[in-house]
Amino acid sequence: MPVSLENHQPHQVVIIGGGFGGLYAAKALKNANVNVTLIDKRNFHLFQPLLYQVATGALSPADISSPLRSVLSKSKNTKVLLGQVNDIDPETQQVKLEDKVVKYDTLIVATGAKHSYFGKDNWEELAPGLKTVEDAIEMRRRIFGAFEAAEKEIDPEKRRALLTFVIVGGGPTGVELAGAIAELAYKTLKEDFRNISTTEARIVLLQGADRILPSFSPDLSQSAAESLAKLGVVIHTKTRVTNIENDIVTLKQGDEFKEIAAKTVLWAAGVQGSTMGKVLAQRTGVECDRSGRVIVEPDLSIKGYNNIFVVGDLANFSHQNNQALPGVAPVAIQEGEYVAALVKKRLRGQTMPAFKYSDHGSLAMIGQNSAVVDLGLINMDGFFAWIFWLFIHIYFLIEFDSKVLVMMQWAWNYMTRKRGSRLMTGEGALAFAQGEYPNSKTDYITINNREPINV
Amino acid sequence: MPVSLENHQPHQVVIIGGGFGGLYAAKALKNANVNVTLIDKRNFHLFQPLLYQVATGALSPADISSPLRSVLSKSKNTKVLLGQVNDIDPETQQVKLEDKVVKYDTLIVATGAKHSYFGKDNWEELAPGLKTVEDAIEMRRRIFGAFEAAEKEIDPEKRRALLTFVIVGGGPTGVELAGAIAELAYKTLKEDFRNISTTEARIVLLQGADRILPSFSPDLSQSAAESLAKLGVVIHTKTRVTNIENDIVTLKQGDEFKEIAAKTVLWAAGVQGSTMGKVLAQRTGVECDRSGRVIVEPDLSIKGYNNIFVVGDLANFSHQNNQALPGVAPVAIQEGEYVAALVKKRLRGQTMPAFKYSDHGSLAMIGQNSAVVDLGLINMDGFFAWIFWLFIHIYFLIEFDSKVLVMMQWAWNYMTRKRGSRLMTGEGALAFAQGEYPNSKTDYITINNREPINV
Repeated sequence: MPVSLENHQPHQVVIIGGGFGGLYAAKALKNANVNVTLIDKRNFHLFQPLLYQVATGALSPADISSPLRSVLSKSKNTKVLLGQVNDIDPETQQVKLEDKVVKYDTLIVATGAKHSYFGKDNWEELAPGLKTVEDAIEMRRRIFGAFEAAEKEIDPEKRRALLTFVIVGGGPTGVELAGAIAELAYKTLKEDFRNISTTEARIVLLQGADRILPSFSPDLSQSAAESLAKLGVVIHTKTRVTNIENDIVTLKQGDEFKEIAAKTVLWAAGVQGSTMGKVLAQRTGVECDRSGRVIVEPDLSIKGYNNIFVVGDLANFSHQNNQALPGVAPVAIQEGEYVAALVKKRLRGQTMPAFKYSDHGSLAMIGQNSAVVDLGLINMDGFFAWIFWLFIHIYFLIEFDSKVLVMMQWAWNYMTRKRGSRLMTGEGALAFAQGEYPNSKTDYITINNREPINV
Repeated sequence: MPVSLENHQPHQVVIIGGGFGGLYAAKALKNANVNVTLIDKRNFHLFQPLLYQVATGALSPADISSPLRSVLSKSKNTKVLLGQVNDIDPETQQVKLEDKVVKYDTLIVATGAKHSYFGKDNWEELAPGLKTVEDAIEMRRRIFGAFEAAEKEIDPEKRRALLTFVIVGGGPTGVELAGAIAELAYKTLKEDFRNISTTEARIVLLQGADRILPSFSPDLSQSAAESLAKLGVVIHTKTRVTNIENDIVTLKQGDEFKEIAAKTVLWAAGVQGSTMGKVLAQRTGVECDRSGRVIVEPDLSIKGYNNIFVVGDLANFSHQNNQALPGVAPVAIQEGEYVAALVKKRLRGQTMPAFKYSDHGSLAMIGQNSAVVDLGLINMDGFFAWIFWLFIHIYFLIEFDSKVLVMMQWAWNYMTRKRGSRLMTGEGALAFAQGEYPNSKTDYITINNREPINV
């Protein structure tokens, strides 16, 4: 359906999702002669790359969130609408919310990704992932709750399971989580307990591939693995999880099965496209890949509909190197900005060349004073990589909001090894105090006739 | 039951509650020859005087919380136990948790107060109070949710009710809440919405007595009322709430009944002693006052049990001026420290004179750049009072934790009128996006044949 240029009403751009893709598209349309409506379920943009810091008690949710309205308050052509989109009608060009219908001329879908448990959906409760603020608070509750429960536990085997943390997935999130939990256990919390020694905690990182951080260069993977080992993290590569049940994680390494008794299992393994991908497929016939991501055209539109675009984690863009672009913030940002530029050009009757991602590199933090940075030509690890990591994240955070002081506070906490944001809140936290362990409905574990893996 | 001095085991002090009373008692026992066990339902101490700042989006919960374990990590004689006390046996000297029993030689009960709805317990859901982090997050959700819903609402009457905020109770919490919401509506959020003007919001403060801040001197009450009026808050004194139903607050002023249509009603009116007061009364026969506070002896012990003490908001200490001391942080701190000193003296065979509260004054913040401070001899209002208010709060906050930078961030936000911590989280926030209004199960209000009060 071609975009009409004779329309005398301002062109209506509707963006679904206020993550990196959607927000940067909206920002880039600030001075365009269009009306923008940004729809999100939440009233804030979340800086997801730092979510693991919320999960491990170093930052508060608000430190990495910016109210969408305040980020866009100067964009007078932009409305923020709090709501959930349930359906799209590409023929009448309408987006359907629970209580409202919004018309669009151009639609940008940027609803991101959610966890994938590869068909084992019951693992979600046993091994939560890290996508939302609520996820992070839940992880925080489990991590700190495990130490609290261990402090009370007298059975040494149960105590050992309470002090075992298994992280499934050796990508950046898994690596960063493992490093942060190791620092918690071996440094931050060292003085805080009386009955347990937190240094007895075991942090186990499981990775299916033959090295962690497979999207980085092999020597950086190696360097990250060494940094993690120095922090006390035990890494198992070429290892798959085959079962999670009764606080036992079953692993497959080659042909061998092993078991780890662990009360806290965290999921950093797979993601899949959000539900909006399915809706688009149904309504437009567009194809999705195996992970539920929408296959997009070279200009990020979808087949047959040149006024519907998909950007960010929900998009599968494979027109560069024949490989889908990874689900990271820089890709989403560049895609969002590209579509905004395309819309502006189109309104002037001009065209745009196909989208092209400029890869400025990848980076992951491994703990206090250590990180790995892969810039293609230049690779870094150790302290300088850490400083670089900090700088990049501060730079992006302050673009939205003047959170400089928050970052200074955080750097200070980091240096002094404080974790100020350790509070366990919500119903689960109160249930915990009443004797219920927060991470499962079952009571404390019992281990019978099981061969614990040597980790 | 007398305390035995011949005991060769170290003297066991058990403290229930990690608020101001309990925590200061524990801190004061740091170098004493006793074993201390501090029991709390939560893993953090909460700086309650700033909770209204969390409710109105200026601070994050972690900014005003300190992990109990980290505050007490250097007190090697002190154990922190996360759990809920269900019962006390004064004869066997035991405190009973869900899954554990703890023996004491000296017991300090510091479990504080909870809201009182004067018998109308169903009001709790309609008009939440402000005692816990969860309360504050819930209030935040309702306040920001009301603006969001108003932005979507097309019916002008419903929109008016969504933009009406009623605060019940004109003590410090009510005054501070009203001032903060007025600043939100009239300043911070001014640029952020497209369909509504947040300056149309009405903030109504209801007070039963003939002036707000009745614990302050009359001229400071007057000055606070003027500051609030300047901010746009409408104050009704000598006004009682007789009903809250279907988003209508019914008031009684003299013999007249009036109604205000308001979607957001916040409770800052009454408190009562926590449940532990009843447990103590049942087990020891000690008397409680009408608000459920435990009547304590001149040394803060309870009648017949010189080794059980009650401090803080749960205690009714009336041996000074024949009036119960107010439920404020300085009283709790001094009581906690007094009992710690008494325990230490007693172990040396010495005695202590009766407890005496030194009143250093009261203070309340009324909004940006304004506060009232009542120091007895010196009273202040306006900007200098605000600076003083800030100074006092920063001073107490940093005593626990190095939150200096957080306070700087907050002062900066205050000056720039930013509210970084506006995120609405939790299940209610998601339900909201799905079209459900977070603060009641009923749908939007309908107003029929009702005479709205002129506010």
